[in-house]
Amino acid sequence: MFKKILIANRGEIAVRIIRACKELGIETVAIYSEADADALHVQLADEAYCIGPANSSESYLNFTPIMSVANLTGAEAIHPGYGFLAENPDFAELCDKCNITFIGPSVYAIQKMGTKDIARKTMEDAGVPIVPGTNGVIKDIKEASDFAEQIGYPVIVKATAGGGGKGIRVVRDPQDLIKAIKVTEQEAEQAFGNPGVYLEKFIEDFSHVEIQILADNYGNVIHLGERDCTVQRRLQKLIEETPSPAINEEIRKQMGEAAIKAAKAVNYSGAGTIEFIFDKSSNEFYFMEMNTRIQVEHPVTEMVTGIDLIKEQIKIANNQPLDFKQSDVKLSGWAIECRINAEDPYRDFLPNPGQIELYLPPGGLGVRVDSAAYPGYIIPPYYDSMIAKLITYGQTRDEAIERMKRALSEFYVEGISTTIPFHQKVMEHSVFLSGNFNTKFLELNPILDDVR
Amino acid sequence: MFKKILIANRGEIAVRIIRACKELGIETVAIYSEADADALHVQLADEAYCIGPANSSESYLNFTPIMSVANLTGAEAIHPGYGFLAENPDFAELCDKCNITFIGPSVYAIQKMGTKDIARKTMEDAGVPIVPGTNGVIKDIKEASDFAEQIGYPVIVKATAGGGGKGIRVVRDPQDLIKAIKVTEQEAEQAFGNPGVYLEKFIEDFSHVEIQILADNYGNVIHLGERDCTVQRRLQKLIEETPSPAINEEIRKQMGEAAIKAAKAVNYSGAGTIEFIFDKSSNEFYFMEMNTRIQVEHPVTEMVTGIDLIKEQIKIANNQPLDFKQSDVKLSGWAIECRINAEDPYRDFLPNPGQIELYLPPGGLGVRVDSAAYPGYIIPPYYDSMIAKLITYGQTRDEAIERMKRALSEFYVEGISTTIPFHQKVMEHSVFLSGNFNTKFLELNPILDDVR
Repeated sequence: MFKKILIANRGEIAVRIIRACKELGIETVAIYSEADADALHVQLADEAYCIGPANSSESYLNFTPIMSVANLTGAEAIHPGYGFLAENPDFAELCDKCNITFIGPSVYAIQKMGTKDIARKTMEDAGVPIVPGTNGVIKDIKEASDFAEQIGYPVIVKATAGGGGKGIRVVRDPQDLIKAIKVTEQEAEQAFGNPGVYLEKFIEDFSHVEIQILADNYGNVIHLGERDCTVQRRLQKLIEETPSPAINEEIRKQMGEAAIKAAKAVNYSGAGTIEFIFDKSSNEFYFMEMNTRIQVEHPVTEMVTGIDLIKEQIKIANNQPLDFKQSDVKLSGWAIECRINAEDPYRDFLPNPGQIELYLPPGGLGVRVDSAAYPGYIIPPYYDSMIAKLITYGQTRDEAIERMKRALSEFYVEGISTTIPFHQKVMEHSVFLSGNFNTKFLELNPILDDVR
Repeated sequence: MFKKILIANRGEIAVRIIRACKELGIETVAIYSEADADALHVQLADEAYCIGPANSSESYLNFTPIMSVANLTGAEAIHPGYGFLAENPDFAELCDKCNITFIGPSVYAIQKMGTKDIARKTMEDAGVPIVPGTNGVIKDIKEASDFAEQIGYPVIVKATAGGGGKGIRVVRDPQDLIKAIKVTEQEAEQAFGNPGVYLEKFIEDFSHVEIQILADNYGNVIHLGERDCTVQRRLQKLIEETPSPAINEEIRKQMGEAAIKAAKAVNYSGAGTIEFIFDKSSNEFYFMEMNTRIQVEHPVTEMVTGIDLIKEQIKIANNQPLDFKQSDVKLSGWAIECRINAEDPYRDFLPNPGQIELYLPPGGLGVRVDSAAYPGYIIPPYYDSMIAKLITYGQTRDEAIERMKRALSEFYVEGISTTIPFHQKVMEHSVFLSGNFNTKFLELNPILDDVR
């Protein structure tokens, strides 16, 4: 097993990875920006080194100082967490060149899945259902308008290099098509240095359902059931749960098999997630994208399987075969995660960095908190606003929800605004409780109106 | 279901019960002594009333103000927690008279199991193995010495009304017998108002293994596996785990069946625990006592079964039948609990009340904290010194231990001394790790000597 791992991240995911390393007896090296000198991951790691100023392009995204620290400390592997360098094939390649294990899939898999039209084609060839769309990047406007006429509006214009809600545009009216394509191409050129766009049929009402997979370096691929991430605000996931209230056992089985096909198509290794659009009206699902990294919402899967996904990532990167089979995976109970952000839900989710004066996370049966916050911690304004993931587990969805309500009610964070009141409203909303909702849930149900 | 429950306790168990009530949609009434005005259970309950001064005989043990609060607030049931009034048949009887449900077994069961020689006799009649001993309370010295000669020394003198390590005395030499009996009788008369004593063979090297049972008001009794509470200091449990590293599947089955027999023998209702002495040398087990209440260490059972024992207590008291059968109970994984006390392990575990300046409980996968502590909380000197129960869960004993080490290392409590360093030593001790130890483990292995 590795003796020392560098964690190229910050916040709760850095703490999460340090925890897994400690339990495996692996020493940890933290890196931090000047803005993060007092961060919890710095305190919990065995060693910690400042690698640059607050601006992440000069610190957490900056290859050179990170690789220097890895080399000087003798770290044998780097865990990138999520975000920052997690899906950067150049960084993975640099690790390979420096003989440091990148804890994640191969450069090849990252590249294949990181370019949207190539991923679509790869999935199509592998027999994974994809949303009807153009055959790769469009060559001209005519190809686009022919496709749109044939499939029917609305359609969606997507930059092949897009991500994080950027480089994506819905077109409802034929007369808006040309403009949408031009604008998306320009945006993509600016943001990603690649103007290529393609078109897909736009499915409006759907559930976001994703499958967690684990693959080792010996061709073994298993899936760990699904996560439902349908509660989103402006394409940002806010609440995730497993099982999905939207799918049945048959769809779960088909989706799991499709996810395994997808992973095998790129010789995947490590933990990964295949995201699907699930269309309740037709009971059809389509490949959306694959995240070639650990995800924010991985804890809900851990709660219902008992499997530590970060430990599995590390063991796989260390060339160990998976020590369980698909038939050993037992999904039991129900788990829900609420992302607690330092945002003011009553002011359009305005980020609200600052000092946490009082901090007391909830406890007791079935409650898990993944966080890097502590009393007195000053949240810097430079990074994402998530301060804690609150996860509850119950024998049923009802129990998990009641426990979430209880845990939210005893989560004390003072000094800054948080999204706790928002989550409390969702947990009491009849549509959420019914389990029958789609990605438009928040748009159609203004959760906080009554108290604005 | 009950609409409102009064919690006749304080500290972590009061918080634990409030949590279960909240998840069941039941309103809670807290009571508190003058010393506990700032306690967490007071803040978390829907209503809270001061019932007397710090001294527990005038507050938490004082029937009149507690029953007054119950009546005035319209509480339909009282949960006594553990300690204080939990095994007091007079209080249970008063609840019956006032038409308030006592969340616990019948007065009859509390009485039968609360008097040690009667419990012994009841178990013997029910076919539950008991330690060889005198036939009830001894009539004279001759009966005692005849028994001791016959069974062989050492023997143990026990007050029938004893408990909590009081009224109990080991005799190794025949010439000490008479004195030991006299002193124990006097002590018992003073402490419990009942001088009766009896003798048992003294088993020196044993594991403390107990079975959790649940029984409803319709004759259904099931068991939820065992807990091993062998790590004790001066008869006080410090660390508990499940499964027990000492027993095998066959013993587990026999012990479970014996526990069900024991519960049925007193028409038991609610959650209860049958404690056994397990003699590894002979693979025999003997009834030690039955605790007719929820126990401090109940969380480890919840972690491996997923069953919320406090909710089950409440549902049973509300006359609901158990909604699962013995065959539905699946024990999965391994759980360990460390009791974190406000004591200085380097000064012979001297209690160390005072203000908690910094408090940050550990989090992440497989970690549960049950506590009533918070940053700034002042621990009063009047009650027991436990400030938190730290419970970890893993797929194996190894994983649960590694997770406990990790969780202990990130549990920040500043301002007072705690037993965290003691637990860290135990978790690294080769004998503890081997799983092969008995109740003399701490006596034979001075855990803290190296750093004294």
